[in-house]
Amino acid sequence: MKQTIVARADLGMGQGKLAAQVAHASLSAYEETGTKARKRWKGEGQKKVVVKANGESELFDLAEKARAEGVPHAIIRDAGHTQLDPGTVTALAVGPADDDIVDKVTGHLSLY
Amino acid sequence: MKQTIVARADLGMGQGKLAAQVAHASLSAYEETGTKARKRWKGEGQKKVVVKANGESELFDLAEKARAEGVPHAIIRDAGHTQLDPGTVTALAVGPADDDIVDKVTGHLSLY
Repeated sequence: MKQTIVARADLGMGQGKLAAQVAHASLSAYEETGTKARKRWKGEGQKKVVVKANGESELFDLAEKARAEGVPHAIIRDAGHTQLDPGTVTALAVGPADDDIVDKVTGHLSLY
Repeated sequence: MKQTIVARADLGMGQGKLAAQVAHASLSAYEETGTKARKRWKGEGQKKVVVKANGESELFDLAEKARAEGVPHAIIRDAGHTQLDPGTVTALAVGPADDDIVDKVTGHLSLY
């Protein structure tokens, strides 16, 4: 199992900002995940992969794909206290779920 | 409330690797947190701050401080599939807890 977090590479986020947005997405999608899948993922070491997207519409398209596949997912908007405008969409987490299902949604994207 | 994640700046982790380690630490400390505090933190927008440390011993010292303050925390070791040697300590998450308690442990560290 794995969780893939798609983060926007076009916003010029600093490293710490990026990491916080990825963590936010990760936790939010985890909370959408059933107890059994959560336990299995954690038992396997909670594998996480961070990949790149460019632009808000790409994240929304991927979220729609995740929804169609029935995979837990979460889109994050930044509160906008620093660096970004309030409400800027920054990241999407897909899974945890079986690798092949997550890859149907995000397998074509490059590592961040 | 906030959660501060301390990540090692001395390992030369790539941006995606760093983000994954921070997310790992964030989720693990969250799981050590009581239900009431979790809900309050999420209700406030689950504020996360990422800061820098250098070296494993600094993370262990901070973890000991967090323990002494009774703050939920989690130290992360990398599985070592990529970039780092297996078992490398990469990050420590402190909280979620009230800002002043988290700052007692990590308030002196610089933003990542």
